[in-house]
Amino acid sequence: MSQPPGSTSSGFRVVDLIRKKRDGDELSRAEIEFLVAGYTREEIPDYQIAAWLMAAVLRGMTRAETAVLTDAMLRSGEVLDLSSLRAKKVDKHSTGGVGDKTSLVLAPVVAAAGLVVPMISGRGLGHTGGTLDKLEAIPGFNVNLSVERFRHVLETCGCAMIGQTAEIAPADRKLYALRDVTGTVESPYLICASIMSKKLAEGIDALVLDVKTGCGAFMKNEKDAAFLAELMVETGERMDKKVVALITDMDQPLGNMIGNSLEVVEVLEVLRGGGPEDLRQLCLELAGWMLYLGDVSDTVAAGKRKTEELISSGKALEKFRRMVEMQGGDARVLDNPKRLPQAAHTTDVLSAREGYLVSLQCEHIGTACVILGGGRERKEDAVDPAVGIVLHKKVGDRVAVGEALATIHYNSEARAARSKQLVQESCQIADSPLAEKRPLVHRVIGNSGEKN
Amino acid sequence: MSQPPGSTSSGFRVVDLIRKKRDGDELSRAEIEFLVAGYTREEIPDYQIAAWLMAAVLRGMTRAETAVLTDAMLRSGEVLDLSSLRAKKVDKHSTGGVGDKTSLVLAPVVAAAGLVVPMISGRGLGHTGGTLDKLEAIPGFNVNLSVERFRHVLETCGCAMIGQTAEIAPADRKLYALRDVTGTVESPYLICASIMSKKLAEGIDALVLDVKTGCGAFMKNEKDAAFLAELMVETGERMDKKVVALITDMDQPLGNMIGNSLEVVEVLEVLRGGGPEDLRQLCLELAGWMLYLGDVSDTVAAGKRKTEELISSGKALEKFRRMVEMQGGDARVLDNPKRLPQAAHTTDVLSAREGYLVSLQCEHIGTACVILGGGRERKEDAVDPAVGIVLHKKVGDRVAVGEALATIHYNSEARAARSKQLVQESCQIADSPLAEKRPLVHRVIGNSGEKN
Repeated sequence: MSQPPGSTSSGFRVVDLIRKKRDGDELSRAEIEFLVAGYTREEIPDYQIAAWLMAAVLRGMTRAETAVLTDAMLRSGEVLDLSSLRAKKVDKHSTGGVGDKTSLVLAPVVAAAGLVVPMISGRGLGHTGGTLDKLEAIPGFNVNLSVERFRHVLETCGCAMIGQTAEIAPADRKLYALRDVTGTVESPYLICASIMSKKLAEGIDALVLDVKTGCGAFMKNEKDAAFLAELMVETGERMDKKVVALITDMDQPLGNMIGNSLEVVEVLEVLRGGGPEDLRQLCLELAGWMLYLGDVSDTVAAGKRKTEELISSGKALEKFRRMVEMQGGDARVLDNPKRLPQAAHTTDVLSAREGYLVSLQCEHIGTACVILGGGRERKEDAVDPAVGIVLHKKVGDRVAVGEALATIHYNSEARAARSKQLVQESCQIADSPLAEKRPLVHRVIGNSGEKN
Repeated sequence: MSQPPGSTSSGFRVVDLIRKKRDGDELSRAEIEFLVAGYTREEIPDYQIAAWLMAAVLRGMTRAETAVLTDAMLRSGEVLDLSSLRAKKVDKHSTGGVGDKTSLVLAPVVAAAGLVVPMISGRGLGHTGGTLDKLEAIPGFNVNLSVERFRHVLETCGCAMIGQTAEIAPADRKLYALRDVTGTVESPYLICASIMSKKLAEGIDALVLDVKTGCGAFMKNEKDAAFLAELMVETGERMDKKVVALITDMDQPLGNMIGNSLEVVEVLEVLRGGGPEDLRQLCLELAGWMLYLGDVSDTVAAGKRKTEELISSGKALEKFRRMVEMQGGDARVLDNPKRLPQAAHTTDVLSAREGYLVSLQCEHIGTACVILGGGRERKEDAVDPAVGIVLHKKVGDRVAVGEALATIHYNSEARAARSKQLVQESCQIADSPLAEKRPLVHRVIGNSGEKN
């Protein structure tokens, strides 16, 4: 171990800043900027940042520290300048779940309403899916656009969907990789800074956050979800952005399809005015908020009505087609979803008894899809776009003996057997239905002045 | 950041162990051994251990974890096998202070009583002095003996004093260097494991701990000192060692001399039956306990009487002479302390008023010696053995206007000026003396069955 770097011209010693956070004191803006900039430039070693991160996890951070950390991470790289586009720039971010494919519906819908949606998304990890993996199920679809090409697609089409670039918030990429191996992921303050630094680097005016709660969400209980939501809303507002957070249900998968090709199929159903009711309703809610925050609609309700019009008129689907084409994807899948990768085999999960489905263990359903090859245990794993699970029953539905609860789409018998068993175990059937159904939207946090 | 190492044949993943400690759960023996062995072999990276250390600092450790960590660190290297020496092996360890030179008195006294003292010590850092620096003030004295030579000196002389070797507790050396730069030094559990792993690697039967409390100590208040003392005693007892801890005063410097050559002078005074009363009394207390735990005396009081005899008979001084000779030092300093390095200049710190000295800010006195060059700000700094401070007044003493409070021994005018001012400011003089004097020994912890 050499002497610690970090006693630079700023006059700070890294070890003093670690001790300060360890002792529960608040770091100043200059101190946090020193740590983030020093780490990004590789002047401060991993081991010192790891100690500081653990102190931040266990001692917590103030709202001011969280906002300053977000800002420092945001400014560690390029902030997209979309000022040449006259329309308001609006985005949505979800904390991740199972079967959550709303982004693929929202981007074209909101662009069809005249707003710009510069969406930078992530990949699936663990039991949760990722927007980039779903898009890549469309043959040829390229999520790795240069910033220039991204800007061009936005100018032409109004929406574009890409992965994180090297230029956007490099501090977050370094910090996230370190957090992943040092047990410092699970902190609302660090999660807030990670999400908000990337989203605000998109150069947006407004952001709708979809914070999931339930057994398939990162935040299992609503209290934790609401705390993270409040942190993110306050952080965004401190940076003069319009931000609202919806706490939404992830106690069972969203929609009926899980798996990358299958989820694109379901997205097309919604864009054609169909699709499962929960997915359709959540898309309307989120789009309604995006249109409201983007000043296209005077109320959220008006935004929802406008969304329904854009779907029924086919304008949203045409916007999706345009984006797929401009990002190199095979737009023929829109008219013939069979052109999406198809699994070689299917098998049904049958109900052993009659009654009511009272629980669909959401995390296990997500894991069952990972087992099939449709998700990732580790970042470097490849994903099979064709495999997945189609649910025929959702919580509250009546089930007969021998009726199909779900269909497994698979390419490997051995994987299918394990996955099938996990899906079977995830379905809890009882004699009577649950007295109360969980709402789709639990709460709305922030933007208290809205007209709903 | 690559994937974390550590998913080895043991089946543990380092990140899971970090999370476990982060969440306040107890690690098992196998888990702690995996971390220590993996880090020592450089299979686990610094950043993961840094995160775990910070979690341990903030979550604390159980007594079982502390003992297991100590044991794993101890067994990361060689444990001295001194079984060929028939006498009991006894050592003393101090948590560090200002003017604390008892080790140089105790090693020869206890050896003169027939016990073996295999003393492995450290260097000064910050305001506290170090035994190795004091010994090296004696021209030629070699603290870097091989293990074979160390054993030979012990066999011949009964005591030997060296620095930590590469073979002894390498995990501690790596961990301490990491703690130093990650703000994870200040944890009683980690301090206990660091101290006890090194001391028990000496292959000793019994250990007397001198845990300092007061403004010049690492533990400023007695409660913290007692907590650390209890941890160390329990850890030692779990390893079947006789251990006792004395909580002793470090609210003012011990003895009158601070600085390496000067402290050797004071050691020789004590070994000749003189020396300042506080230093002489503490040496008697500690030696009394060492002789009692080493089964040479039936009671601590008998051990103290025996110590006085060994001093007055000159046997302790002769043992010191033998050790100095065997470790290559110039033993003529014993008869002529002027042969020790002498500072070029002296200057007196005079009292500006009359009254009673009610406080001698101990940490500042230590720092004043560092400013002169007699100690280290950083590990790699060189030390000037000749410089230091001689106190003419201690807390409780009456002081006249213009009377010398202290004499500064220096080699640099600029340093002397700063040091002198700090000493001046450290002396608080009031109209009346303090009502109560702090005791030399505040408490004794452990070995409840002793006959005092």
